[in-house]
Amino acid sequence: MAAQGPLTPSAAYGMISISEAQAIVLEHCRVLPVERVPTHEAVGMVCAEAVVAKDPLPPFPASIKDGYAVVASDGPGEYPLVGEALAGTSGSLKVEPGTVAYITTGAPLPPGADAVVMIEQTEALAPGDDGRKRVKVNKGVVAGADVRPVGVDIGCGTVILHPGDRIGIAEVGLAGSVGAAAVSAYRRPCVAVLSNGDEIVSSDTASLGPGQIRDSNRPMLLAAARETGALVTDMGIVGDKQGSLEETFEKAIQDGADVIITSGGVSMGARDLIKPLLEKKGTIYFGKVCMKPGKPLTFATIEDSGSGRTILVFALPGNPVSSYACFHLVVASALRKCQGWREPSLRRVHVRLSSAAKMDSGRPEFQRARIHWESDGEGAGQFVAKGTGSQLSSRLLSALSANALLEIPQGTGEVPSGATVSAVLVDDLRHMSLQ
Amino acid sequence: MAAQGPLTPSAAYGMISISEAQAIVLEHCRVLPVERVPTHEAVGMVCAEAVVAKDPLPPFPASIKDGYAVVASDGPGEYPLVGEALAGTSGSLKVEPGTVAYITTGAPLPPGADAVVMIEQTEALAPGDDGRKRVKVNKGVVAGADVRPVGVDIGCGTVILHPGDRIGIAEVGLAGSVGAAAVSAYRRPCVAVLSNGDEIVSSDTASLGPGQIRDSNRPMLLAAARETGALVTDMGIVGDKQGSLEETFEKAIQDGADVIITSGGVSMGARDLIKPLLEKKGTIYFGKVCMKPGKPLTFATIEDSGSGRTILVFALPGNPVSSYACFHLVVASALRKCQGWREPSLRRVHVRLSSAAKMDSGRPEFQRARIHWESDGEGAGQFVAKGTGSQLSSRLLSALSANALLEIPQGTGEVPSGATVSAVLVDDLRHMSLQ
Repeated sequence: MAAQGPLTPSAAYGMISISEAQAIVLEHCRVLPVERVPTHEAVGMVCAEAVVAKDPLPPFPASIKDGYAVVASDGPGEYPLVGEALAGTSGSLKVEPGTVAYITTGAPLPPGADAVVMIEQTEALAPGDDGRKRVKVNKGVVAGADVRPVGVDIGCGTVILHPGDRIGIAEVGLAGSVGAAAVSAYRRPCVAVLSNGDEIVSSDTASLGPGQIRDSNRPMLLAAARETGALVTDMGIVGDKQGSLEETFEKAIQDGADVIITSGGVSMGARDLIKPLLEKKGTIYFGKVCMKPGKPLTFATIEDSGSGRTILVFALPGNPVSSYACFHLVVASALRKCQGWREPSLRRVHVRLSSAAKMDSGRPEFQRARIHWESDGEGAGQFVAKGTGSQLSSRLLSALSANALLEIPQGTGEVPSGATVSAVLVDDLRHMSLQ
Repeated sequence: MAAQGPLTPSAAYGMISISEAQAIVLEHCRVLPVERVPTHEAVGMVCAEAVVAKDPLPPFPASIKDGYAVVASDGPGEYPLVGEALAGTSGSLKVEPGTVAYITTGAPLPPGADAVVMIEQTEALAPGDDGRKRVKVNKGVVAGADVRPVGVDIGCGTVILHPGDRIGIAEVGLAGSVGAAAVSAYRRPCVAVLSNGDEIVSSDTASLGPGQIRDSNRPMLLAAARETGALVTDMGIVGDKQGSLEETFEKAIQDGADVIITSGGVSMGARDLIKPLLEKKGTIYFGKVCMKPGKPLTFATIEDSGSGRTILVFALPGNPVSSYACFHLVVASALRKCQGWREPSLRRVHVRLSSAAKMDSGRPEFQRARIHWESDGEGAGQFVAKGTGSQLSSRLLSALSANALLEIPQGTGEVPSGATVSAVLVDDLRHMSLQ
């Protein structure tokens, strides 16, 4: 029979604030090493070395329009056509004063020409007596008109991507435009995820045995870590035996995990084996945080003497909403810092409550909400939060379609409907509801 | 030598507004067929069939705390310990009045017990005369205390995911909690991307020949389509020959493309072959949109008689910023509608300009900006937009780190610094700058 009564490990951890917890975690995150990555695989990663343009863009004076390359000082009039300058070509074509050349968008301006007249300002005429096609230019232009000078978009030597820039869609295009087929970026963290508890069975279990519940945390945390850009490894469910838990940790570390995320087993019970294991193998920095949900959140590091690496361990509470909230409030920022984010901490906005929010007298609470943008009809607007029903920490339905965690301060009574509170963004707002 | 002067196809298209263009496109998007997908691979997809809980959660009355299962009416006092109820087990243990059983968080409440006293409110005592361990309960509790009743989180028969719900992180956890190892979701669109133009060479070209520029649009558009959840195929660069362009289209359609995105070749020049090809193969709905950048944006559909499918074709202008803006303003919503989004259209917020924005007299302009949330120091705040330098449509540096497109109305003069304008979100705001 297992020992009963409070155990030393968990009882020993004093409660700290969520902001202290966040600061401690970020302090222990090291930015991961730099690697060369094909640019198209680097989306979402952070640039580690400047990408510099070796050529100007455009590399030649380029026409902005389809039309005629002209000598601007010639002015309006009828001119013989001496040829065509097509995009992707370079020929011996020259435009002498008193002549014009057909030119397409993006084509190099032929020597001699100094401007382009757009086709809408011209008329194609019948060939003259000499058999040459002729063009009537109806409008005078100044030198440089409708021509992109060399380097106007990107000067030679321009830094296209700075260290610390996140590589998004436009950045992929920019890297392409200067021929950077690969970039140096901070490596993605390898994150191992496991669930702990004898009552937990795989989420694909069709029929439950007595005392069993399905694992919702592991698939959720794997998806969450992947969304931050991490590479994930599923370490499965580990029962309440110290030995198998330790073996699983060893395997994760040997397999190269930078971060281990567990859920369950961090309360005060006899079967709560995570904290004793972390004390044995590493250093626990905190084991109790003043937040609702998520109080038993535990953070530790393990030194791997073999590789010299420091592994971050986040031991999340087993309640699904606690795991959800702890991931978004603490783990996500850590994974971002590892990946080289300049500003890894949480993104907050202010939101108006569309219904009152009950306060907890003991802890600040992170209530799940759906926020959307509401126009005031006069050219401005604000975020409005809708609640997601009962905020019980076991009720993951409260996170269904949620995109924000409302920061409800500790207190008595409620924050009234219509009041404005701070909210942490936990989803891409391009998915927010339109009303 | 190619024909010169205005060509019929492009000249024939009247200019329509951006909102008309968006409406026409969405009208022609069909939601793609439903497929069964392993839940962990369905992140980002839209649920097509309700997911229903077949068991209640919890499936048994479960302890919320580590402590002792008691008969509430017994009240405080000293009681013999009759056993332990551990998570994941179910035994023959019964709690008669006047006895208690040790219980861990998540364990089934033993028959007879009706409440849990948390361990902090108890003391383990030395065994009594009968040799049985004894426990002192210091606090009375009411029936049901610290017990999650059957089905409190999820009732049997509860609809966990409704058709139309986007499958995010919490939704993966919810599906796991009810044993839904696979879900029915709308298929991801297959998107083929090609660049058109004799001047375009691959973005990994180290040294440019005369008249050449590197392809920035194709890698950018592939990344952009992938970000919306699409499966992408790179169709490469196609030169200005009608034959090869047509062959590439045929191949994309044979390979199962639902959507084809091209860039370049949609202006009015002799080498602008996209519109003539689309006229030959399908139906063009518009070929000129009153927007800056992006005016030559063209949209068409092609019926594939073989498969009975309708392929959507977006022919974007070659200027990188035009491609970028057209993708975000028109193509992204279409890809979302194909994937079953309830509300596929653009997400807008209002933002305060931190510098004046010049208006264009001919077209509404979508200026790239970096927006961040600025607190007013009194518990509320607003988005503030920073400009990204010259808004030249060839200057993709204007999209570097941009997360919004400011909707600057058509007009003369400028929108002053400090004014509020509407902005379309084009990036995840969890990446926005903190200042």
